Amino acid sequence: MKITGTFLDEITHDIPSNNWDVEEWAADFDAMRAVGIDTVILIRAGYRDRVTFNSETLSRELVMRPAYIDLVDLFLTQAERTGMTFYFGIYDSGRFWHQGQPEKEVELNLRFTEEVARKYGDRKAFGGWYMTHEIHEHDEGVTRLIERLARHVKGLKDVPVLMSPYVRGRKQFDDNPITPEEHEAQWDEILSILGGFVDTIAFQDGQVEFAELPVFMEINTRLARKHGLQPWSNVESFERGMPLNFLPIDWRNLRNKIEVAEAGGVEKLITFEFSHFMSPNSMWPSARTLYKRYQEYIDRG
Amino acid sequence: MKITGTFLDEITHDIPSNNWDVEEWAADFDAMRAVGIDTVILIRAGYRDRVTFNSETLSRELVMRPAYIDLVDLFLTQAERTGMTFYFGIYDSGRFWHQGQPEKEVELNLRFTEEVARKYGDRKAFGGWYMTHEIHEHDEGVTRLIERLARHVKGLKDVPVLMSPYVRGRKQFDDNPITPEEHEAQWDEILSILGGFVDTIAFQDGQVEFAELPVFMEINTRLARKHGLQPWSNVESFERGMPLNFLPIDWRNLRNKIEVAEAGGVEKLITFEFSHFMSPNSMWPSARTLYKRYQEYIDRG
Amino acid sequence: MKITGTFLDEITHDIPSNNWDVEEWAADFDAMRAVGIDTVILIRAGYRDRVTFNSETLSRELVMRPAYIDLVDLFLTQAERTGMTFYFGIYDSGRFWHQGQPEKEVELNLRFTEEVARKYGDRKAFGGWYMTHEIHEHDEGVTRLIERLARHVKGLKDVPVLMSPYVRGRKQFDDNPITPEEHEAQWDEILSILGGFVDTIAFQDGQVEFAELPVFMEINTRLARKHGLQPWSNVESFERGMPLNFLPIDWRNLRNKIEVAEAGGVEKLITFEFSHFMSPNSMWPSARTLYKRYQEYIDRG
Repeated sequence: MKITGTFLDEITHDIPSNNWDVEEWAADFDAMRAVGIDTVILIRAGYRDRVTFNSETLSRELVMRPAYIDLVDLFLTQAERTGMTFYFGIYDSGRFWHQGQPEKEVELNLRFTEEVARKYGDRKAFGGWYMTHEIHEHDEGVTRLIERLARHVKGLKDVPVLMSPYVRGRKQFDDNPITPEEHEAQWDEILSILGGFVDTIAFQDGQVEFAELPVFMEINTRLARKHGLQPWSNVESFERGMPLNFLPIDWRNLRNKIEVAEAGGVEKLITFEFSHFMSPNSMWPSARTLYKRYQEYIDRG
Repeated sequence: MKITGTFLDEITHDIPSNNWDVEEWAADFDAMRAVGIDTVILIRAGYRDRVTFNSETLSRELVMRPAYIDLVDLFLTQAERTGMTFYFGIYDSGRFWHQGQPEKEVELNLRFTEEVARKYGDRKAFGGWYMTHEIHEHDEGVTRLIERLARHVKGLKDVPVLMSPYVRGRKQFDDNPITPEEHEAQWDEILSILGGFVDTIAFQDGQVEFAELPVFMEINTRLARKHGLQPWSNVESFERGMPLNFLPIDWRNLRNKIEVAEAGGVEKLITFEFSHFMSPNSMWPSARTLYKRYQEYIDRG
Repeated sequence: MKITGTFLDEITHDIPSNNWDVEEWAADFDAMRAVGIDTVILIRAGYRDRVTFNSETLSRELVMRPAYIDLVDLFLTQAERTGMTFYFGIYDSGRFWHQGQPEKEVELNLRFTEEVARKYGDRKAFGGWYMTHEIHEHDEGVTRLIERLARHVKGLKDVPVLMSPYVRGRKQFDDNPITPEEHEAQWDEILSILGGFVDTIAFQDGQVEFAELPVFMEINTRLARKHGLQPWSNVESFERGMPLNFLPIDWRNLRNKIEVAEAGGVEKLITFEFSHFMSPNSMWPSARTLYKRYQEYIDRG
């Protein structure tokens, strides 16, 4: 099974910039295409005061920094040139929904996604919405936020809606990891609410120990199907649990997770993310060797 | 407005070494020159037991490690070859002035700068002194340390004296950031003392949030002029607020800060620092793309 | 004095992967050979659930992840091709010996090393055992663990046994660094137990301040000889005490430590480790310049 989708992370919390412009992005879409990637997912269109294009909606409500180039247009153009599907990740304020004001987060995104639909909705590559707000357990306010926004964006343009939650796993939260049973109960509840509006769910695979991954994968896949969602897996291509956060993953670890996901019966593999962690163009030389290892692997079949 | 000065950071607290020798430094001075850099500033001639040349003064007083090559001579030679002005950063013990013994720090530097003046004072490129001790608020002992050393070095060789303080900003000190009003009061006091001895002040621009930068820039520029100093800005070319400290900055962030500084009326832009963070020769590949982005930007005019 | 040995760190706690396969490893053994390396030391054959080859012993007792390629065979083959001696580092559970069950750690390794001796014991390059469990002071259970395993492996194949402990030095443990006197007392005790079974001891040199290194080096060398061990030094080629853990060391620091070790009378220099930190093939570009500096240094003689 191949990784056929990747996030695009140009408005980031924590990943340093490759400092690319059109020419470097074009080369990277070619490199993606060469290993079978057909889907690109903008992780977020904006975060706090940063944004991928100069949005009238956001600038009216908030003090935003300038977007010197329109990255949404750039990514759509490259997706069209290379025949890929583009998912649009919505805006994350980085504050309202963490500070008990999910209403404000919803309001902003209702108007923002309307602007996006007007501006980019007719673009050929625009093939999905991505629910940017990452969750790991049920919180009434935040689950309802995702429900309302997913319903709204499907009304604006009826294409699949994707989310990619995390697991409160031992590798990242080792003082208080979630058990498989708790995880299942939380997500049964969440997906009973979101099932009608979110189409696809790709859990992140990096927070749990390798030995626990099959158990969580089985739960995630089963729950997705129970509630009518397509199960994908987000095969993270960066290494977790190292003093250096975050560097390209060891190829053995990536392969292990690909094979666990395949055995778990997911329908598509995506990764966070190609351009920093497994690209021949990455700022990290070990991403270039990872690309080579991955290419040999898929060539062997 | 272009960045026309850079620090040289070969005795460092926190930046890993490029491991360059004469040949690589020569190439880097050429790369600097190609984008208009005319000023290089040695951030410190020594720190604790490390030193840029084998100083008799320091070795008499302290246990110093050997300097296998004379970096001051190397940098002066390159500055002379490429027609740049060199600022000499003094010695930082890393302890006396933090431990209530600013007198001891002054004494060491009085003798050390005399040795420096004897040894390198006649070099053609030697065009300034840099006050290495970084401060952010008024402390009687430390402000007087800078006053005495600035006065002394001007007596040794009458060339401009530069300092580059930081702001106790929200991005780095988010449990207790300074307000613009407090910052203004502190620096009005400090510059009323240093005004006659320090010629130029280049505040670091990376500790405050982007939205706050214009306010701090306005205060800094106004206070500098009020007390007779030239306002420059230290447009930091590394990213702050990331899990990885420190990597090349996102080009959008660098551009934003350049334009805020220009709008704020500073007279020159310098950066910490070219060779790691925006050089085509850097150990960080994303510095190489940053150089390309910056070059395109200045070529557009 | 040249560095003539290096660790191989492909089952790691904390160093990101270069993502190499046979072809890149072959190139790196060539690069080692070109600067005089004649000894390679596998730091550990396995750690927790990761392993360098699919071991029947470990898989019977523990849930292990698959080893997609046999790294022990790969390293032995490269060592044979380039005429080097290979030391085999044993298994570290990462838990039993930290959790008061050194017996369990011993049991696993008794069976595991027997499997290793059967499988690889006749290989031409197999020239030493490496005691993987790193210690810094005497703990009855752990010292006895090393004693029993060292005795056992020598019975399986009578080749030298090496260990590479650390010093609880100020650079890493600055709230509670060990004094030279305490260090000497601890190691006099430890080596009085291990002296008959461990042949060679290479203390890590990166945890103590540069100024203290000669004192610790003298103690280490003297104690080794007193108890009949060969003193080597592990000249670490990564930088300690930086925000980024771990990057290639500043060449000046490496040179300093090489010369201190030589003056201290050690018999061989090894490093942790060549392939990430001083190789022309490393994922870190500054390792490539470090290789160049080191090569110039040894060429000067």
